[in-house]
Amino acid sequence: MTRSNGCSSPSAARSEAVALATSAFTTGELATRFGLRLQGDSETLIDGVGTLAGAGPTQLGFLANPAYRAQLADTLAGAVLLREADAEGFAGVALVTPDPYAMFARIAALFDVRESRAAGVHPTAFVDASAQVAAGAHVGPHASIGARSRIAEGAIIGPGCAIGEDCEVGADSELVARVTLVRRVRLGQRVLVHPGAVLGADGFGIAVDKDDEGRAHWRKIPQLGGVRVGDDCEIGANTCIDRGALEDTVLEEDVRLDNLVQIGHNVHVGAHTAMAGCVAIAGSTRIGRWCLIGGGAGVVGHIHLCDRVTVTAMSLVTRSIDQPGEYSSGTPIMDNRSWRKSAARFKQLDGLARAVHGRDKNNRENP
Amino acid sequence: MTRSNGCSSPSAARSEAVALATSAFTTGELATRFGLRLQGDSETLIDGVGTLAGAGPTQLGFLANPAYRAQLADTLAGAVLLREADAEGFAGVALVTPDPYAMFARIAALFDVRESRAAGVHPTAFVDASAQVAAGAHVGPHASIGARSRIAEGAIIGPGCAIGEDCEVGADSELVARVTLVRRVRLGQRVLVHPGAVLGADGFGIAVDKDDEGRAHWRKIPQLGGVRVGDDCEIGANTCIDRGALEDTVLEEDVRLDNLVQIGHNVHVGAHTAMAGCVAIAGSTRIGRWCLIGGGAGVVGHIHLCDRVTVTAMSLVTRSIDQPGEYSSGTPIMDNRSWRKSAARFKQLDGLARAVHGRDKNNRENP
Amino acid sequence: MTRSNGCSSPSAARSEAVALATSAFTTGELATRFGLRLQGDSETLIDGVGTLAGAGPTQLGFLANPAYRAQLADTLAGAVLLREADAEGFAGVALVTPDPYAMFARIAALFDVRESRAAGVHPTAFVDASAQVAAGAHVGPHASIGARSRIAEGAIIGPGCAIGEDCEVGADSELVARVTLVRRVRLGQRVLVHPGAVLGADGFGIAVDKDDEGRAHWRKIPQLGGVRVGDDCEIGANTCIDRGALEDTVLEEDVRLDNLVQIGHNVHVGAHTAMAGCVAIAGSTRIGRWCLIGGGAGVVGHIHLCDRVTVTAMSLVTRSIDQPGEYSSGTPIMDNRSWRKSAARFKQLDGLARAVHGRDKNNRENP
Repeated sequence: MTRSNGCSSPSAARSEAVALATSAFTTGELATRFGLRLQGDSETLIDGVGTLAGAGPTQLGFLANPAYRAQLADTLAGAVLLREADAEGFAGVALVTPDPYAMFARIAALFDVRESRAAGVHPTAFVDASAQVAAGAHVGPHASIGARSRIAEGAIIGPGCAIGEDCEVGADSELVARVTLVRRVRLGQRVLVHPGAVLGADGFGIAVDKDDEGRAHWRKIPQLGGVRVGDDCEIGANTCIDRGALEDTVLEEDVRLDNLVQIGHNVHVGAHTAMAGCVAIAGSTRIGRWCLIGGGAGVVGHIHLCDRVTVTAMSLVTRSIDQPGEYSSGTPIMDNRSWRKSAARFKQLDGLARAVHGRDKNNRENP
Repeated sequence: MTRSNGCSSPSAARSEAVALATSAFTTGELATRFGLRLQGDSETLIDGVGTLAGAGPTQLGFLANPAYRAQLADTLAGAVLLREADAEGFAGVALVTPDPYAMFARIAALFDVRESRAAGVHPTAFVDASAQVAAGAHVGPHASIGARSRIAEGAIIGPGCAIGEDCEVGADSELVARVTLVRRVRLGQRVLVHPGAVLGADGFGIAVDKDDEGRAHWRKIPQLGGVRVGDDCEIGANTCIDRGALEDTVLEEDVRLDNLVQIGHNVHVGAHTAMAGCVAIAGSTRIGRWCLIGGGAGVVGHIHLCDRVTVTAMSLVTRSIDQPGEYSSGTPIMDNRSWRKSAARFKQLDGLARAVHGRDKNNRENP
Repeated sequence: MTRSNGCSSPSAARSEAVALATSAFTTGELATRFGLRLQGDSETLIDGVGTLAGAGPTQLGFLANPAYRAQLADTLAGAVLLREADAEGFAGVALVTPDPYAMFARIAALFDVRESRAAGVHPTAFVDASAQVAAGAHVGPHASIGARSRIAEGAIIGPGCAIGEDCEVGADSELVARVTLVRRVRLGQRVLVHPGAVLGADGFGIAVDKDDEGRAHWRKIPQLGGVRVGDDCEIGANTCIDRGALEDTVLEEDVRLDNLVQIGHNVHVGAHTAMAGCVAIAGSTRIGRWCLIGGGAGVVGHIHLCDRVTVTAMSLVTRSIDQPGEYSSGTPIMDNRSWRKSAARFKQLDGLARAVHGRDKNNRENP
């Protein structure tokens, strides 16, 4: 399958990647294209990227993390992307930039050659008569699109995706494969959703009720809201974002969620916030902008975190946080035998503290 | 797609929701229908529901949580559902009930208008020749149904569901989309399963064995049981319930599981128990009735929890619990700098306790 | 569907299971086939397996865990698999083996009768013109296979699987249903992948960058590597294994992952390592061989664990481990009221320790 070169315009970045497939660049070309200072040979041919330890003579390595500085002397990389300070004394070909990691991301994208997707709807896909699919969108095998949903130009709906009613997929967004948008889910532009993610499932709302004979049981709270995802968000594999009970669950722009993340109903996530794998945010909680939530961390419902809060891995946030900074809970990893002793003492901690303070008091009274 | 009005009877609740689409009700009609005391105008027209803060003049708000009582004075809601005590002095239109939250759930269901699903099997679906699909069931696009499986009247098998061999889906149950029932999975009536859930995968059973040359490796334990899910259960998105090794994994009736929950093989979950997102219950554990398991909590294998045990978020239960009540583990969230100090001391806790008690002993001996 | 008896050879184990469907064995036959010492009647007919408590007179029970020894006296099992020491004095029919649990796994496999899968591609499946599917492989309903991917002899691609570009599925491997291999995923032989698993999604790599107006935003790091899974691995339902950024994410042979596990990009997992449900391993971490990672445990990125490290459930490993053994973090489960007291004291722990040590120092100076 090749994307037609016709009217339907994919994103510029995507076109570039396709056009450049199997291409190579001289170090001089890279320096010019990305505005880098070149130190050394301008004709070295680069056809890929790698780590300092792994890159070969036609690959570009990079030095961003100082911990790897010692590898610079031995690298076989054809050229290395690094900071001015690291370039001094480096005998190889250097491309110099103040921020090697971000620049590496840009250059590596040249070599991220993806299969292009032909515009059009695959014959095995099913599109409801009331749905709208732009001429330049791709709808893959076994995808289904429900009533009144709209797929914008350049969007890619991968194989096995199931889109329900009243959803929107913005321009140049991609649902990689087997993504579900249940209902009332609106994605902005350039949103990337990985396989198995489920957006717009019912929020988890139940209330104890009684039946006619007075027996208690759960009654489901209808979930009448939707999900809104801003431009440039990325949603990891098998991540779940429930739709709101009365209003929408919201991700502002450029939010980055790793795999197996759970976002409860009516959560609001500020722009540029990133969450590592297995994070869970309970319902109606509001997370600020530029927050970083470590893997496996949890945030209880109905609280808020201000901007620029970092939560370390597997911590549980049980109260609102109003000061930017780093927050943690849990205990350090220990060998099991030592841990058992500490754990047993944790249970006695109040008594221990009382003993100490009681004695203090005692000491003060009877010095 | 419109459900045929013919013989195949969907659940009464579902019919009602469809019939009422785009309808509105006067406050008088709501009072009569749900047996509520009406205070104020009986002709106010209600066409939706909302929060006290968000509801407009044609919407019904509700006051269940006392924390929101202050919003009552300023609400723009056309009417408010509340308790007798809160109705006193309220100037707006009030619908009075002893349990506003459960009543809100009932009334909101009037406005939860869903696309109805036509009875019949979608042309892109695949049904094994030995499977049975009731005339009034709906089987959506790209669904597949394996040998000897049975889909009862009023059941909905959404797009992309994969049902294996020897499964049963009870009357009026719904698999929303992309649900997998691997094999020997039996769902009761009115069970709701959200997208991506996997029921009946192999339990995780392995034993160390040796090959002919004496080298150790894992040998898989065959998983010969199934999964049984009682009436009125709800299973969240991407939740997994493994089938049993020798006997069945069981959920009694009205069990409510949120997203990304893991239920190991041979677990037994009592009626009305609810688990929030990302909970994991290890194999062969027995959970009582009306238990509430907080988000991210874990329960190890081969233990039991009696009825009405509440486990707070991200706690780990490592022993059986025989007394109803609330249980917790973990440490509080702290700023990282303070936490590091406490965490370092946690490792020394046994020594600290010995120092205190030793001194106590010392003090007793040498006062 | 019945697998043709023709040329395409499924694995021997699989053929056997099919051939033996609805079969029964005498205790004498079992003793001979598996090299067991038989004590008692050799003509007892066995047509299934069960627990000591649940097995009936035509079923084989087993005693591996000494905790169940008391059930031996009352079992109704037609025969029992047990150790020599337990066989003494047992009045029933005994099949004696040094390792009853592993032997039970072998014998139970006789009764694990699965639907066989016909060789060939289901008419509703989609296979890219450049993909290769072996004549003896099975490709189920609504599966799709992308460009240049290869499916080997005896492999089973279940319903709804989506395989992207440049993937390989080795001989006799099985993707049960709705599995996604995104791109550049290579599975060895006899790999079993459960429904909803996602292998080869983009690793979670982002770098802060600035746009032309100097505003910060995330830039995605291209993920140019793949995933390699060794022979005899098992991957649980809804588990995610991301592909590497520059090199591959690797599972050596015989790795066993339970459901909802997260394996970050460039992780390397040694042979025979097993991880229980909901474990998360962050990027670039290296796990040794024969490690056992308990349910819900986490391991941070860029560290290593040596061989034979056991991590208990819901522990977080934040540093490299160079000694085999068992490791833990967390605190014990407590009733909530007691826990609140200990938790409050945890926050004061540094002060408490200083008080104790300060007084110690004081005592030493002013005895």
